[in-house]
Formats: sequence, structure tokens, C-alpha cells
Amino acid sequence: MEPRYDTITFLSDYGHDDEFVGVVHSVLRQLCPDVRVVDLTHGIAPFDVRGGGLALARAAQYLTPGVVIAVVDPGVGSARRPVAIEVADGAAVFVGPDNGLFGPAVQMVGGAIRAVWLNDPEHHLESPGPLFDGRDVFAPVAAALCNGVPLEELGELVEPAGLFPGIFPLSEVGDDGALTAEVLWVDRYGNAQLNVDPTELDELGDVFELDLSGTRRSARRAHHFSEVGTGAIGLVVDSYGFIAIVTDRGAAAEDLGLRAGDQLTLRPIADEPPAGGGVTTRVELS
Amino acid sequence: MEPRYDTITFLSDYGHDDEFVGVVHSVLRQLCPDVRVVDLTHGIAPFDVRGGGLALARAAQYLTPGVVIAVVDPGVGSARRPVAIEVADGAAVFVGPDNGLFGPAVQMVGGAIRAVWLNDPEHHLESPGPLFDGRDVFAPVAAALCNGVPLEELGELVEPAGLFPGIFPLSEVGDDGALTAEVLWVDRYGNAQLNVDPTELDELGDVFELDLSGTRRSARRAHHFSEVGTGAIGLVVDSYGFIAIVTDRGAAAEDLGLRAGDQLTLRPIADEPPAGGGVTTRVELS
Amino acid sequence: MEPRYDTITFLSDYGHDDEFVGVVHSVLRQLCPDVRVVDLTHGIAPFDVRGGGLALARAAQYLTPGVVIAVVDPGVGSARRPVAIEVADGAAVFVGPDNGLFGPAVQMVGGAIRAVWLNDPEHHLESPGPLFDGRDVFAPVAAALCNGVPLEELGELVEPAGLFPGIFPLSEVGDDGALTAEVLWVDRYGNAQLNVDPTELDELGDVFELDLSGTRRSARRAHHFSEVGTGAIGLVVDSYGFIAIVTDRGAAAEDLGLRAGDQLTLRPIADEPPAGGGVTTRVELS
Repeated sequence: MEPRYDTITFLSDYGHDDEFVGVVHSVLRQLCPDVRVVDLTHGIAPFDVRGGGLALARAAQYLTPGVVIAVVDPGVGSARRPVAIEVADGAAVFVGPDNGLFGPAVQMVGGAIRAVWLNDPEHHLESPGPLFDGRDVFAPVAAALCNGVPLEELGELVEPAGLFPGIFPLSEVGDDGALTAEVLWVDRYGNAQLNVDPTELDELGDVFELDLSGTRRSARRAHHFSEVGTGAIGLVVDSYGFIAIVTDRGAAAEDLGLRAGDQLTLRPIADEPPAGGGVTTRVELS
Repeated sequence: MEPRYDTITFLSDYGHDDEFVGVVHSVLRQLCPDVRVVDLTHGIAPFDVRGGGLALARAAQYLTPGVVIAVVDPGVGSARRPVAIEVADGAAVFVGPDNGLFGPAVQMVGGAIRAVWLNDPEHHLESPGPLFDGRDVFAPVAAALCNGVPLEELGELVEPAGLFPGIFPLSEVGDDGALTAEVLWVDRYGNAQLNVDPTELDELGDVFELDLSGTRRSARRAHHFSEVGTGAIGLVVDSYGFIAIVTDRGAAAEDLGLRAGDQLTLRPIADEPPAGGGVTTRVELS
Repeated sequence: MEPRYDTITFLSDYGHDDEFVGVVHSVLRQLCPDVRVVDLTHGIAPFDVRGGGLALARAAQYLTPGVVIAVVDPGVGSARRPVAIEVADGAAVFVGPDNGLFGPAVQMVGGAIRAVWLNDPEHHLESPGPLFDGRDVFAPVAAALCNGVPLEELGELVEPAGLFPGIFPLSEVGDDGALTAEVLWVDRYGNAQLNVDPTELDELGDVFELDLSGTRRSARRAHHFSEVGTGAIGLVVDSYGFIAIVTDRGAAAEDLGLRAGDQLTLRPIADEPPAGGGVTTRVELS
């Protein structure tokens, strides 16, 4: 058998407090010793399928060709199906639970080509208990794929169209010209990524009133953190090309009480600080 | 010299805030460049020798053959001995402090074959201070073992029977038919692993009254999280084959105030929700 | 082109909650597949350039020859320059922002030989947004260096003397014989490393009164944690050869309210517990 892939990328909500991640690495080291494992992140909040799916989608264009194991799996052991999803002309295979986790990333890379329900235990580990599919199913299946086992030998081929869909929330401009958006992600620095493309704002202006369930703050577009100005709120193009709400060396999401999944509106206002607005510091754009 | 091992597994309580783990990796990269290092976990609570020992025991059957560095070492620099313990017909060597950390894992893999007190500084790094044996003693010794240095050249052979024993608490059925158990581990998801084998419960029934120092709750056996039902408490066979107290997408240990090391009793009750019991939600078993 | 370096060491304030570290690894895996990446730490507090610089300096003498990517970069996207700094006769190149992060480590390894402002985009990734230089500039530049691209092809050579200096605070003995020191680092265990060399204390004695902005506590030199004694405060030579304030199996910094950057004085006192001093437990030195 000819080895097929030489890299496994691995994302999970396992965290680093326990040995879950290490045990999966150890299993992989034994089953496909020459394959390199790249840990994408294991810091997805427990059971946060949406957060895991968005992290995978953000990373999609940077993923090394190969197998991608992703495990955020509140339904482990139940009827949800373990799957392998081939994408990008076979350049990559996503392996994990069919619970929507792969939806956004699969879309990003052009859709699923083939999918297999991993219901053939031949390539699984014998398990002392049914609750660690990362170790017992996904890792050995990923190793098998790297070692050249054809996808169709890992279980029953299923229609890609029947996979659990991933949901990517869309922003919307209302009749009043205000943009309704959603916080996709709050990163470590407290930047709040919105489901808003810079071109959507380009048409609307440079200064906006943010309406966060009642609280109103003005925010101004900026190119980078330092440009925002102390105490002010900036709207920058973030590292993935989305609009993010930021402050300079502060945690915007914390200041504004924003969490992933929150709704807000951005209402374009004339290029002046709003009278009675929440921000008194002028933002100086260079 | 013929290289002997190609994998080092590494567990510690170093955490990821500081550069401790990275410095050990850097030392290994220089001393045995072709060896792969698998991080089992570095999230053991500071100084928690018991927790580290149990994590190592849980992982034992999945460890890649090779050298295992484990460091949870409140006595670093004092009289406790640094040791290397050969196990499994020489397939693996545990390297770290002789403070009980290796006890449970050594038992799991069939006992120690040979042990060496690492008192020969030849293969150690010269140290700017005596408090980082992971870097100065355990890493270079592990590298030496990988590179083919025989165990007995690393120090004085000692009797394996004289090693600090690891303690694994045993569960017990009392005269009243109640099972007294201990929480071995609370994982990231809040599942509380007990020192109870599923066969111990099989003889007692499906529904139990948990007595947690006074608080009483009913709990029912289940196969996986989703089967437990909202608000109810389940007893599942966990991923390592032990009984764990869980809730569905919740953190059972937090809800019940359980921590590693806590004692509790499980009293079999008739397969009905207890009158006046703490749980009113019926658990539906499929 | 002949490959030049086979190891990239990587430090950042990216944390492990997001996929930042994983994406950089993924980029490196594609651009220089045979290079090994050693994660030094990604737990530097967000934007803590001082903390990142000191971590790098502590690790400096243990770094594997090769390229070192370090990213703590509150000014990303603004006028601060991305740089590559050659050190140690070309054995290593530091790649990251020119904001003082490399100052202490560069000093530790003998100073900069050459430096390049990374203003030639040829070896950068095309970026969807300007705020992730780790992925778009530093990783591809590090890969290029490993692959043998000469330093001078990565941008404009600049005077090493013009690099942003790193600041390493110096301790000082006053006219009254008291040593004024600063907390360099509080590690995971709560040990507080001071900018004090053991030889500085050797001349002053074994027992000291610590003055922490008003609070006074006595502290005694010790060789390791267990020697300190319950409830007492020890001054040990830490793993990097500096004096650290510690307790036995406790978190000295937390007990004393110490944080990185805090000032304190150490006043030598006669080798007796001070009358009315804060510590009543005698420290037994072996």
C-alpha cells in the first residue's frame, strides 16, 4: 500500500488539562509513524460545534493537504454518524462527527466530493468505552487514510448532500439602511469578528452607531489597532478579511459585553462624533 | 552506538503559560534530533502527583513504545531520587522523580523490570540552578536512552521493590450493599470518573442513590451522554472503561460539587425514581 | 538552494484558545515541510512585550540553532517594522516585530550581527487582512530562511544599533545596604524571579527583610522548596540562576501580592527571626 497523505491536522474541544490530545497523538504515532500532526487548536469551548466549525472554516485556506481530524462531539456514542468527507479533488479528507462541525469548512473548500459513514469497525481501535471516538475511531481512520487505505473501504458511502449542514449566519441591510450582523468569534485579544465583509461597509461609510441590544456606541473604521485611539472603538479588517470590532490594546468584546453569537446593528452616521454618543475621544484617521 | 527508541512521551505539571515545556523540547531537539516528542499533557495541576500518576495510568495502554518523561515534582532539588524505570520487557522506560508518580502506570504495564537512580551526572546538563530537573536531568537522560546509552550507565541500579509506591484507591461494597467509591478524575467536560468497574455495578442494578457527603441524588446507568436526559445524572462506562458520573452537555462534577479524591457511596435502588428524590426528570433508557 | 536551518522555535502571545498557532504551523508545514517546529510558549500575556522578551532571554541559552519566530505585537499593522535579526555567527535568526521583544535575548547571545527590515513582500503571503503578521510575514520569512534564502534578500539591511532596544531592569544596592530589586517573572507555581544574581546576596547574608511597598516579611535563603518550611518565605537560586522568592508547595507571589514588574527591597538582617516580623516559623537550613 502506497502512503497517501503525510500530514494530519487536528482540532478539538479536548483542551489541554487532560491527556485526550496526547493519547490521540500517541495512537497516531503508532499507526502512521511518519505522518506529521499539526494541532490547529484544542481550545474550542466544550461542545461548541458552531465555534469549532467556524475555526475550521477560518483556517481552511491555510490547511496543509492531508487528513483533518476535528472533534467537537456532544453526541459521542449516540446515533450521530462518524464520517469521512473527501474534499478539494481528494487533496484533503475531513474525519469526525457528522453534526455540522464540517459544514462551513466544506463550503469554503468547494464542497464535498464523497463521504463515508465510518461504520466498518475494521480500522477502529477496540474500545474500553464508547465515549472517545477521537482515539478509537477518528485517529485510526485518519491513520488508515494516510497509509493509503481507500476511502470506500472505511464504511458505507453516503450522499454528501445528506450530511448535516453547517450554518453560517448572513448579515443583512434593512430598509432603514442599518446592517444587522452577528458576532462570529471573540478571539483571545477580545476582538469581535462579525459576519460582515469590508465591501458591505464600504458602501455605507466610515462611522457607525453600534446598537448592542440597547447600548449604543459609535465606532469608526481603522486599519490597525494603534489607529483606533484610546477609549474608542474601531472597525478593522481582521486577519481573515472580515470586519472586527476592536479597541487599541484592550478587549473590545469584554468592554462591550459581546459574545460569539450575539446580534448587533451597525447604522451609518455622518462622519462626526454623534451628539450625546458614548465615545468622546475623536478617532484620528491617518 | 545504535539508537534504541524513536519516541519520547512527555507529561508534566508545567502548564503552557511559561516556557518550561518548550525549553525541554529544545534540549531534546538538540540531544536527539530525530526523536519525535509526543506531549501527553502538561495540564496536571501544580504539584498534583496523584493526578499526574492517574493520567499516566489512563494513557498507559496507548503509549508509544519509547521513553516517557513525567515531571510532577514538588520535591525537586531535595532528597527525592530522580529515576529511570524499565518496563514491558524494555519496550519503555519511565524517567522522572521517584515520588509515586509512576506507581499506577508501572502497575498497569506489568511492573518494573529494572530501575536506576540517576545519580551519575555524566549525562545531565550543567545547571544554573537546581530546580528544573526536567531540563537538566530528565530530558538529557531520555535523550541518552534514545541514543542507545544502556540504562545501567545512567546511575546506580536500585531494587524496583524499593521505589516509591503509587496508590490506587479501591472501591468497596459494605455490609449494607452500598458501594463506597472515590472520584479519580474530573475531566474538562466535568465528568467524574470513579474507581468503579462496570462489572461491579452490573451485579447491583441500574439505578442508584448517590450519597455525596450528605446530599443525595439518584443516578441511572446510561450508554452515552444524550441518553441521560436533561437535568438527570447518568452513570456511564467512560472512555477508559471506568464508571463516570455525567450529565448531558453539562458538567456533572460542578453541579454536584465533586472534586478528584472525593468519597461517595452508590446505593442500589429499585428501578423507579426515588420518592422525594433529588431528580424529578425520568430518565428514558432507549 | 541548499536548506540552511532545520528547526524553527516559536514563541507568541497567541494562546491556545484560537487557531492562530495552528495556522502558523500549517503554513510552515507547507513552506518548509522538513523543518521541525518547537513551540517555546504561546502563553505570554496578550501584548506583554516585556514578558515575552524575558521568556525568550531565559530560554536563549537552550534554543536550538535555527530560526526563532517571536510574536508579541500590539502594533501589528502600524509603522513598527517587521525584522529579521541574525545572531551568534549566523547560528540563529530572530524573526518578528521590532518593538523591543528581542532586545534581552539578543544581548544574551552576544548581540546582533545583521538585521533586515522585512519590507520586501516577495516572500510574504498574500493577506486577507493586515493583522496577522505571524501567518503572513514571519512564518513565510522563517521558512524562506530555512530553505536557504539569504537574509539580505528578505528586505532592506538596517543598522543593528538602530533596533528597538530591550530593557532589562538592574538591581541596585543603596547607601543603607538594602538591595532594590524588581520581579522579572511570576511562574506557574507562583515563584517570583528577581533581577538579582545569587552573588549579590552572598555578600549581604542569609536572612533578609523584604519590603513590598509597605508590607514587611522576613525571608531566608534556601536550596530548594522543601527546605523553606511551611508558611515561611525562601530565597532560592532558581532554574535560570536568578534569585526567586518562593514558598514550599505554595504560590509565593500570590501570598505576597507580587506581580511581574513590581519593585521591592531586600534588607539584610542578623540571622535571627526579626522581632515582630511577619514570620514566626523558624526556617531550618540543613
